[in-house]
Amino acid sequence: MHNELRKEFQLERMILFSDAVFAIAITLLVIEIKIPDEHELVSDKALLRSLGHLVPKFIGFLVSFMLIGVYWSVHHRLFGFVTSYTRKLLLLNLVFLFFVALMPFSTGFYSEYAGPELVRYQLKVPMTFYVLNFCCVGFMNHIMWRYVTNPKNKVAEPPIDMLTVKLAKLRSFLVPFIFLIMLLVAYLTDVFYAVWVPMLIPLLLKILQRRIKSKYKS
Amino acid sequence: MHNELRKEFQLERMILFSDAVFAIAITLLVIEIKIPDEHELVSDKALLRSLGHLVPKFIGFLVSFMLIGVYWSVHHRLFGFVTSYTRKLLLLNLVFLFFVALMPFSTGFYSEYAGPELVRYQLKVPMTFYVLNFCCVGFMNHIMWRYVTNPKNKVAEPPIDMLTVKLAKLRSFLVPFIFLIMLLVAYLTDVFYAVWVPMLIPLLLKILQRRIKSKYKS
Amino acid sequence: MHNELRKEFQLERMILFSDAVFAIAITLLVIEIKIPDEHELVSDKALLRSLGHLVPKFIGFLVSFMLIGVYWSVHHRLFGFVTSYTRKLLLLNLVFLFFVALMPFSTGFYSEYAGPELVRYQLKVPMTFYVLNFCCVGFMNHIMWRYVTNPKNKVAEPPIDMLTVKLAKLRSFLVPFIFLIMLLVAYLTDVFYAVWVPMLIPLLLKILQRRIKSKYKS
Amino acid sequence: MHNELRKEFQLERMILFSDAVFAIAITLLVIEIKIPDEHELVSDKALLRSLGHLVPKFIGFLVSFMLIGVYWSVHHRLFGFVTSYTRKLLLLNLVFLFFVALMPFSTGFYSEYAGPELVRYQLKVPMTFYVLNFCCVGFMNHIMWRYVTNPKNKVAEPPIDMLTVKLAKLRSFLVPFIFLIMLLVAYLTDVFYAVWVPMLIPLLLKILQRRIKSKYKS
Repeated sequence: MHNELRKEFQLERMILFSDAVFAIAITLLVIEIKIPDEHELVSDKALLRSLGHLVPKFIGFLVSFMLIGVYWSVHHRLFGFVTSYTRKLLLLNLVFLFFVALMPFSTGFYSEYAGPELVRYQLKVPMTFYVLNFCCVGFMNHIMWRYVTNPKNKVAEPPIDMLTVKLAKLRSFLVPFIFLIMLLVAYLTDVFYAVWVPMLIPLLLKILQRRIKSKYKS
Repeated sequence: MHNELRKEFQLERMILFSDAVFAIAITLLVIEIKIPDEHELVSDKALLRSLGHLVPKFIGFLVSFMLIGVYWSVHHRLFGFVTSYTRKLLLLNLVFLFFVALMPFSTGFYSEYAGPELVRYQLKVPMTFYVLNFCCVGFMNHIMWRYVTNPKNKVAEPPIDMLTVKLAKLRSFLVPFIFLIMLLVAYLTDVFYAVWVPMLIPLLLKILQRRIKSKYKS
Repeated sequence: MHNELRKEFQLERMILFSDAVFAIAITLLVIEIKIPDEHELVSDKALLRSLGHLVPKFIGFLVSFMLIGVYWSVHHRLFGFVTSYTRKLLLLNLVFLFFVALMPFSTGFYSEYAGPELVRYQLKVPMTFYVLNFCCVGFMNHIMWRYVTNPKNKVAEPPIDMLTVKLAKLRSFLVPFIFLIMLLVAYLTDVFYAVWVPMLIPLLLKILQRRIKSKYKS
Repeated sequence: MHNELRKEFQLERMILFSDAVFAIAITLLVIEIKIPDEHELVSDKALLRSLGHLVPKFIGFLVSFMLIGVYWSVHHRLFGFVTSYTRKLLLLNLVFLFFVALMPFSTGFYSEYAGPELVRYQLKVPMTFYVLNFCCVGFMNHIMWRYVTNPKNKVAEPPIDMLTVKLAKLRSFLVPFIFLIMLLVAYLTDVFYAVWVPMLIPLLLKILQRRIKSKYKS
């Protein structure tokens, strides 16, 4: 009994450690937004203009905040199934957190060059870096879902409902996959077509989820 | 029973994640206060003068620390009622935390231009930005109170005392509302009249609370 | 019973929030140590010399890390007695945390000017700022000990042993008090005499503790 | 019973405080990777080149992330045995955390000079600093293992299996020891031979573990 409790606490510790990394990464995002320095010609107009230059930074902050927030809540749901842990799960989680911790840099880098310069020079490097970072977060999440829901690994019991598993695996794979497609579109055509590709995610998710569900009912 | 505990732990995780974001945002505030660089003409006098220039930064730090601290304690009280959670509550909480995480930037921006320059140039942009950020925190808090205390959503049970609910909703609405009024006063008259508007908060709160209470007694 | 648990969790949340602020403040200390920039004349000699210039920074980091660490453990002990909480305790704790969160700035400011410049110019401003910040931490800690151990406030029960209370109050008062004396010595005589004053703390503590203990035995 | 629970909570608090410091240190690592500033001649080529210059930074981030992650999981395992705590354990843990919190600086310093300059000037100072910091983490970890598993200190009960203890002590000593050897090799021969020394760790661990195990079986 005491051992049981202790083991549960060990698992909780791993979860709370992950939460802390998420919380720090999500809050550090703001550090990349530098305060405008307009002390030479200070006026409301100048300050408003420099806030205008920061708009890509604010959008980057918002998007990454929401993405990390959503992945945190997915992590939340995933570890809701976990009842035991192994060294491998710990390692997978660490690699996953590595890519989460890299997000403040990627966000800063991408949004630094996402202003008018992006339009003029068709910059692909910052977007590629950001998307690849995000895809690593997404695929590591997918790998963890596979690992946790695989009954052989015995980290989640009682066995989870198969439909839930299928849907979760699908979703966790589809999101980073579509982002890779977006990257491809950006390279083959134009950055501005690419930006719309992620809009496909909810549509595709709905279609595929319906198909899976109907397959399970029959 | 095990499931019950697990669900409670999931809720706790969401609360502790919020606490971590609060704690990081509140501690990051200090990062915007840069250490004075007086290595060329180093003397006690020069250092004291540059500390003097930092006074608006210290005040900004203090005010935002207390505001975030108070909103943390309100969040604390609100989630004291929550016994279950939904995806929507998670999302509302995430948006709320977004505005909390933005506070270190807003504080830094506002207090960067809150020195003598504010007097000379009647700057409104930094104050507007700060107040709007704070109002978003306040209104998101209000929305969460409405959501949690609405029995339809079934996130708080047993149903909370109606008087407590009324008072909490009123308070959570009044505070950001008065700050919007303050902004209006600043634009219509002068920044220096505006600064005194928040003083109305305790007065108005007292009057309205008394009215609500007397209505409930009768 | 459920309410009991809930209330205990609320108390835990306040404690864990404080822990997070402590942990962030203690880790942020390192941010003030800037990486030496010797890219023009890069050599082991140049890097060693610039590490040498950082020695006051490292000492400041070490001293503040240990001070914050010790105050964390005292906070730890204090809240070990707390079984309930009030709005006032929450506020006192918030003010206490404010001064803890200010420590990274104070440490950075003090150690920025604690090199050879301190000797040459007898700088008193950075030391005064640092010591005053630390004293605020110390005195707020003292006030919290007084508040928690006062049976009237009913935040700690069963009532704590009187001897423990006396000793804790004495200790929490003596430490910041001696630092104020050190400041006085620095202003009246010389910074270099002042540095030795804190050495009195263990001596004075021993004498006073013995007196209190013997008084209680008789 | 209530006291039991309270004591357990105090221990948990110490563990969670450590987790927070680990989580912050591991996430702060990314702050040392500065966003490339190529606004004058902005182009994909220029950005790619400046990302190329950041490669040592990324490797440093990855290596330190994994090292801190592994030490966190070792800390995790170690405190899985702890059932009580003493002032000395608290102090040892604090010193251990001090060196963990220093890692972001060391990583930044080392990887700042780990590019082509390292090759050209055979820089030993940054590597020495980094390795010494890491060895302090390692040896403090070893000292904590010795302390916790020593039955005299009564912090871990029921007494842990002797074989587990032997292996843990060996491992915790061997890792920083090999890094010291690496430093020696770097000074006596060449930085480039030294880099390969840590490869010996898994080999040596296997040999020594087999010897210890066979000794215990007989």
